[in-house]
Amino acid sequence: MTREAVQGGVTAPRGFAAAGVACGVKPAGLDLALVVSDRPAAAAGVFTTSLAAAPPVLLSREHLQLTGGRAWAIVVNSGCANACTGPAGLEAARLMAIETARAVGCDAEEVLVASTGVIGVRLDSHRVSRGIIEAAGALSPAHHERAARAILTTDRGLKERAVRVDTPAGTFTVGGMAKGAGMIEPNMATMLGFLSTDAEVSPPLLRRALVEACAGSFNAITVDGDCSTNDSVFALANGASGVVIGDRDHAALAEALAEVSRDLALEIVRGAEGATKLVTVCVGGAASPEDARKAARAIANSLLVKTAVHGGDPNWGRIVAAAARSGAGFSLGGARVALGGIVLFENGRPYDERAAQAAVRLRESDVTIDVDLGAGGHHGTTVWTCDLSAEYVRINGEYRT
Amino acid sequence: MTREAVQGGVTAPRGFAAAGVACGVKPAGLDLALVVSDRPAAAAGVFTTSLAAAPPVLLSREHLQLTGGRAWAIVVNSGCANACTGPAGLEAARLMAIETARAVGCDAEEVLVASTGVIGVRLDSHRVSRGIIEAAGALSPAHHERAARAILTTDRGLKERAVRVDTPAGTFTVGGMAKGAGMIEPNMATMLGFLSTDAEVSPPLLRRALVEACAGSFNAITVDGDCSTNDSVFALANGASGVVIGDRDHAALAEALAEVSRDLALEIVRGAEGATKLVTVCVGGAASPEDARKAARAIANSLLVKTAVHGGDPNWGRIVAAAARSGAGFSLGGARVALGGIVLFENGRPYDERAAQAAVRLRESDVTIDVDLGAGGHHGTTVWTCDLSAEYVRINGEYRT
Repeated sequence: MTREAVQGGVTAPRGFAAAGVACGVKPAGLDLALVVSDRPAAAAGVFTTSLAAAPPVLLSREHLQLTGGRAWAIVVNSGCANACTGPAGLEAARLMAIETARAVGCDAEEVLVASTGVIGVRLDSHRVSRGIIEAAGALSPAHHERAARAILTTDRGLKERAVRVDTPAGTFTVGGMAKGAGMIEPNMATMLGFLSTDAEVSPPLLRRALVEACAGSFNAITVDGDCSTNDSVFALANGASGVVIGDRDHAALAEALAEVSRDLALEIVRGAEGATKLVTVCVGGAASPEDARKAARAIANSLLVKTAVHGGDPNWGRIVAAAARSGAGFSLGGARVALGGIVLFENGRPYDERAAQAAVRLRESDVTIDVDLGAGGHHGTTVWTCDLSAEYVRINGEYRT
Repeated sequence: MTREAVQGGVTAPRGFAAAGVACGVKPAGLDLALVVSDRPAAAAGVFTTSLAAAPPVLLSREHLQLTGGRAWAIVVNSGCANACTGPAGLEAARLMAIETARAVGCDAEEVLVASTGVIGVRLDSHRVSRGIIEAAGALSPAHHERAARAILTTDRGLKERAVRVDTPAGTFTVGGMAKGAGMIEPNMATMLGFLSTDAEVSPPLLRRALVEACAGSFNAITVDGDCSTNDSVFALANGASGVVIGDRDHAALAEALAEVSRDLALEIVRGAEGATKLVTVCVGGAASPEDARKAARAIANSLLVKTAVHGGDPNWGRIVAAAARSGAGFSLGGARVALGGIVLFENGRPYDERAAQAAVRLRESDVTIDVDLGAGGHHGTTVWTCDLSAEYVRINGEYRT
């Protein structure tokens, strides 16, 4: 089995078409995307755990349950999260699904819906409906980039990826596009991911592969520890390649989904507000996988660690402090901390003579923090985050206009 | 029973003397403080939960156990946390206690020790010992302010408070001083609090009152969610007032300790790096006290909420999002969010027409966020935090020199 990066984003797999149009929810620019399969596809979704989940999240969950994991289309608007607006919000999400179903010729339950943008503002269903009709007329495999642009809010750039997978059973492709946390306009924090493949796979197997892929990608990144009301990742598998994925070939699909997801997730972190560095936090020596996650997230979300990385300060003390308060098992005597591969704390004592060398590594745009918790176990995990800059504060502190 | 604020800080209660001297651990300025009782005092301590607790924390915990809660003196150095430096660190902390015991005439176990400053740097025991001898010679009730200055690192100002309590059984006084999170020099995040009273109380009752006081003060504030390796709060009760606190009068002492602690804690938040506003987060309608704390802390630590407050943006959507992801029970339909007393979200819908009014309230230096989780319970809690400014990032991102 081999994997190779290819062009084409979410329409790189056979049988998918996309469109991106401007329907006027945003003041200007593309703000409505459609992704449509030319045949019914197995579908899976992973959603925000927020108890204030937005209507598009509630509706898409409901649709996946009703269909047992089948869909033809995904419709997305940007510029308005359609969240916290009362019963009208669910009505607006339903209208998006109904209009899309009518335009592409499927049932409303076979449409998945996502929204991103300002919380607490009503979605203009009239504009969205006109946009859906226009987008349905413009569907093409060539329009993956327009779709990838239409789901953005204030992201620095579009995020799309695709890989071709050659297996003994044949060749299939996995594609995807994502939207990160661009919050120049307040309340825009939604993380969206859309994955497509022309492999044939049952809904339960697709769901398993998607959950695994998210664990090591979209669920392993953190910009500011805030989980949004609209976070959603969808996967559609339409079988157009003729390659059938069973239990035996599960790994081939799962790894391809994981690779595309990880690449998109890292793009989200690199493009986060005010971010200047991608920070990879690797935690090992944990007593359990849960402990590894706790420690990695505590380090990745520590303002003190993030500002130190921003300032180029090889400040291992802040990393030790974050790990030691994380709730994970931790032994000061057994712990080890390395910055950019330079060990700065080990055997219970600092190696400050190496600080200058570590400071040089911190000047690079990709920074690695390795921590062994010394807790006697062999569990570990990796989490990605970014540095924290004054620019982040400026962006998020600006008054909503 | 009446309570009245009085001057005198940690030496306001009878029978306490203090000193603050410069011993050279810091490049310049006062860096060693002594607080000494003229008779043995009941003593209690509350410490960091960090698994990398610093040697002074380990030693003070040990001393309180050995004595069953008795002490004569507290010794504190600033400029060096004496943390993460291997076995030499515990040796240095022991020497501080031994030198103090010799200088003031008590056993080493009757001395409580605290340190704050850079992590991972060895404490110069020679300088500290000389400082202790000098401080012991300078002990006076008049030197509370010098002591309060000597425990600071880069705090904006000193923090001391005292209240006189008149009860039917007589008058006693509670005093205190604290050190906040001033982290211009990296790794300085330690929160220290020292409380004194001339009431007579058993060690178990003192401990109970201290734990209660901390729950509503030092343990209810958050600047950046990072808990340090050295956080400590001590209370000494020497009985010099002749007022004996039994179970019946427990409330009089507990409330006075709580008031002094809360005032000191709020000073810490006001003086936090880059802070321009004190933010009071009141959560109600929670299903349990634990849920109330979870939601209040999620809101108080949310970078999106803190930057919105900094920018004067009445962004209730970020508050809803933080509460809804906090792990606490939450009902969007039953929730209510008010900023500065102005309700912006209720009955599942926003009241954006009031946003301008709320924005005016956000310009004040004290901002209140009230959240009802709508979870059907009647539990609540209050947490204090500050806004997040670009100045915070600048301070904490500067390269360690």
